[in-house]
Amino acid sequence: MAYLVDRLILHAHLLTMAGAGVGYLPDGGVAIHGDRLVDVGPSSLLRSRYAAHDVIDATGQALLPGLIDAHMHSQWTIARGVAQDIHHWMQKGLAPYAAHLAPEAALAGTRLALLEAVRAGATTVGDYALPLEGWPEIFAETGVRAVLTATINALSAQDMAGWRLGDLYPFDERIGQQRIDAALKLHREWHESEGGRITVLFGPQGADMLPRDQLRLVKQLASAAGVMLHMHVAQGDREIDQMMKRYGRRTPDFLEQIGYLDDQLLAVHLTEATEDETDLVAHSGAKMVLCSGSIGIIDGIVPPAVRFRAKGGLVALGSDQATGNNCHNLFNEMKLTALFNKILYRDPTVLPAWEVLRMATIEGAQALGMADSIGSLEAGKQADLILVDLNQPNLQPLLDDPMRTMVPNLVYAANGSEVDSVMVAGRFLMRNRQMQTMDATAVMATAQREARLLAREVAADPLHRELALLTAMEAGQL
Amino acid sequence: MAYLVDRLILHAHLLTMAGAGVGYLPDGGVAIHGDRLVDVGPSSLLRSRYAAHDVIDATGQALLPGLIDAHMHSQWTIARGVAQDIHHWMQKGLAPYAAHLAPEAALAGTRLALLEAVRAGATTVGDYALPLEGWPEIFAETGVRAVLTATINALSAQDMAGWRLGDLYPFDERIGQQRIDAALKLHREWHESEGGRITVLFGPQGADMLPRDQLRLVKQLASAAGVMLHMHVAQGDREIDQMMKRYGRRTPDFLEQIGYLDDQLLAVHLTEATEDETDLVAHSGAKMVLCSGSIGIIDGIVPPAVRFRAKGGLVALGSDQATGNNCHNLFNEMKLTALFNKILYRDPTVLPAWEVLRMATIEGAQALGMADSIGSLEAGKQADLILVDLNQPNLQPLLDDPMRTMVPNLVYAANGSEVDSVMVAGRFLMRNRQMQTMDATAVMATAQREARLLAREVAADPLHRELALLTAMEAGQL
Repeated sequence: MAYLVDRLILHAHLLTMAGAGVGYLPDGGVAIHGDRLVDVGPSSLLRSRYAAHDVIDATGQALLPGLIDAHMHSQWTIARGVAQDIHHWMQKGLAPYAAHLAPEAALAGTRLALLEAVRAGATTVGDYALPLEGWPEIFAETGVRAVLTATINALSAQDMAGWRLGDLYPFDERIGQQRIDAALKLHREWHESEGGRITVLFGPQGADMLPRDQLRLVKQLASAAGVMLHMHVAQGDREIDQMMKRYGRRTPDFLEQIGYLDDQLLAVHLTEATEDETDLVAHSGAKMVLCSGSIGIIDGIVPPAVRFRAKGGLVALGSDQATGNNCHNLFNEMKLTALFNKILYRDPTVLPAWEVLRMATIEGAQALGMADSIGSLEAGKQADLILVDLNQPNLQPLLDDPMRTMVPNLVYAANGSEVDSVMVAGRFLMRNRQMQTMDATAVMATAQREARLLAREVAADPLHRELALLTAMEAGQL
Repeated sequence: MAYLVDRLILHAHLLTMAGAGVGYLPDGGVAIHGDRLVDVGPSSLLRSRYAAHDVIDATGQALLPGLIDAHMHSQWTIARGVAQDIHHWMQKGLAPYAAHLAPEAALAGTRLALLEAVRAGATTVGDYALPLEGWPEIFAETGVRAVLTATINALSAQDMAGWRLGDLYPFDERIGQQRIDAALKLHREWHESEGGRITVLFGPQGADMLPRDQLRLVKQLASAAGVMLHMHVAQGDREIDQMMKRYGRRTPDFLEQIGYLDDQLLAVHLTEATEDETDLVAHSGAKMVLCSGSIGIIDGIVPPAVRFRAKGGLVALGSDQATGNNCHNLFNEMKLTALFNKILYRDPTVLPAWEVLRMATIEGAQALGMADSIGSLEAGKQADLILVDLNQPNLQPLLDDPMRTMVPNLVYAANGSEVDSVMVAGRFLMRNRQMQTMDATAVMATAQREARLLAREVAADPLHRELALLTAMEAGQL
């Protein structure tokens, strides 16, 4: 007699990502009940064991764990494309917008980022922002699995808009304390909410952006709460310059000194980390988030993820922000990660397709400390998964036997538009390319309106007449 | 009184790519009659001047010249994804398939490649292949603008399948002569056919693949025909090794010696060209084709296109082949080109978005010697254009005034799936995402069938049991 479950997905090209490889199974599927995977295996076996109200025939589709975007500043999607092809991205590109960003615009950005990311297969998003009212609610409503981090710094946007390159950042400890209080409140109200779908980390923005005592305080608070520290580390020559001027030490050295280097740390970027520094961070048990597209565009640099992994470290992928990277698309991040690192090492065998697919799934989950519940398709884990339509010109032909080409094609030929369905905790966020929990038209219309308001504010501010964007427009390049 | 034309496209965000920048015009459009652009300008002006049976409202869409994919081996799309993440791509990845490639499979690959490329906005394709019967007919039927090159080498696929790394290639001059004869026949029958939509170049495959006398002969024939030589140059350490062993010279030096370095040459790849060699080729007036994705994946190298351009050279983009690059998508090539070169120079200002957009359009046309008829939207040129739907989550918000973000978003955020319509010579190849001249379902079904046959042949050949693909499958990585 068959057990009754909520849903069966059958006849897929299954990539469980369990074990040491990709866990391929032809004609495979999953049984889903509530928010969990009850069973994973050959379609014939699932059919014999289970009955379901909703039986999905996934013939011609790849079924794999939902993709994990471990680091994103979703609010900046409201200003997509305002700051590329320039030096000093944060100060000369982003800061003018930061000084004028209204809460409504930021929230509209978050909604747009989630719409985009989910359509490209993300099920877990590690979002990093000042914790506006209404921000966690967006994740609650849309059903996206969220790892939220409230930015903690001791900087005011107004001060930073007037800051000159090379000067030390002006710290304002009262702002630091306000941010810490806001982070505590976010954690208290949202951590492990929505049936565990939303978790909250602590986020000192960078070692250069908060006084040492407040950095130590945040570490203590995170330890007491039992959550990770999600932090930008060695994220540019600007940060290193600040650290040398303020403390006479580079970031990794400083972090070791103040007790930050351990397995509680989720270190984002490591853009400027030397080989020794990379090894130091990896050996400490800290995890890394690699944002290939973002750092490629805004710095022209390939962060040391390959070395970090070779030293035993775990690396998750992140899309960062759309003001520089321009898109939130894990397929894009997988491809760029593989290619950038082949180029860095001048070696086509570096980061083969299957390894980056693991970084976007199970390794990402491990880096976030969530591998017991997500990252692979295994019985007992959360039903976070995607279906990818392989019947697209750029994914054809589909060879599975005696050759198998699906994994390289998913990484090197797919662009994310082939994602057909996205499920988080047993609930479809997108099905047959139709959004189920977001009104795409409304999200885009609101973002469009807010973006126009923001752009006008920025353009009207006399401080910002020297924006590279305006210069390029005048030269007929945009 | 208004002139009657075939079609008006109005209210687009127009990027004419005329002049030195991108030629942006808000609320712009084109008037089309026959195969040509009759007028290009503000919608209001076009409306006052013209009437048309077909008036297309392109509100919310970008209108730009069709993209130019200057170098492709379309037939290899039949074996998409069989050779990544390995050393010695051509010999260890591709050669086993080359030895078993049936004409039906090759032609199915070409159809699939065109389907994919057109859907991602390509209007001109520079295809390079042994000139099978039925191959030019595919371009004639589908309406794609074609620059066809018949591969000329003195190598047999059978010999090459058994060739050992480091050995000199065995030349067979009879094969060389057969290939030359076939190229002459292709030129005679197809050059400037289909109202000029199909042109034919001459294609010595590489300086290492044809005896010197036959290289000289091909140059004479191309000169007599008044067409370019489309040739792989310095395309890998394997080529350099062959040249040193056979002639004691590296490729650029050798090419200069035999009179190949001039503005008749379209030099593909330059993967291994030194700075001096790059300068030598650029100064000669030769043009370059840059295949960023392909060379990134199969060699882990960024070819010297930035230097080539700095020395006054023209550079077109190409997608090469799907056995390594995995996809034929100019949006992919634009993005990778910008990012790879920022990384190569560790400088985010290198190759800004507007420059790579020019490489994919007007500069590509100039490199192919076709800028009088394609590459920009200007009255009198061919009506080769694309419409891109900007009302997609990854291209929103759309800022045009007072900031303008469309160009960076087209290059850094678009993935090609946003292309809504594609026109070549006044004829829609795709309209509202529906193919007009190709049966997508049939193309994919045929490719699938042929690919399976090919894979079985390759797998059954005892020579090929050591394929990296099979090893990776056994290790659970595919």
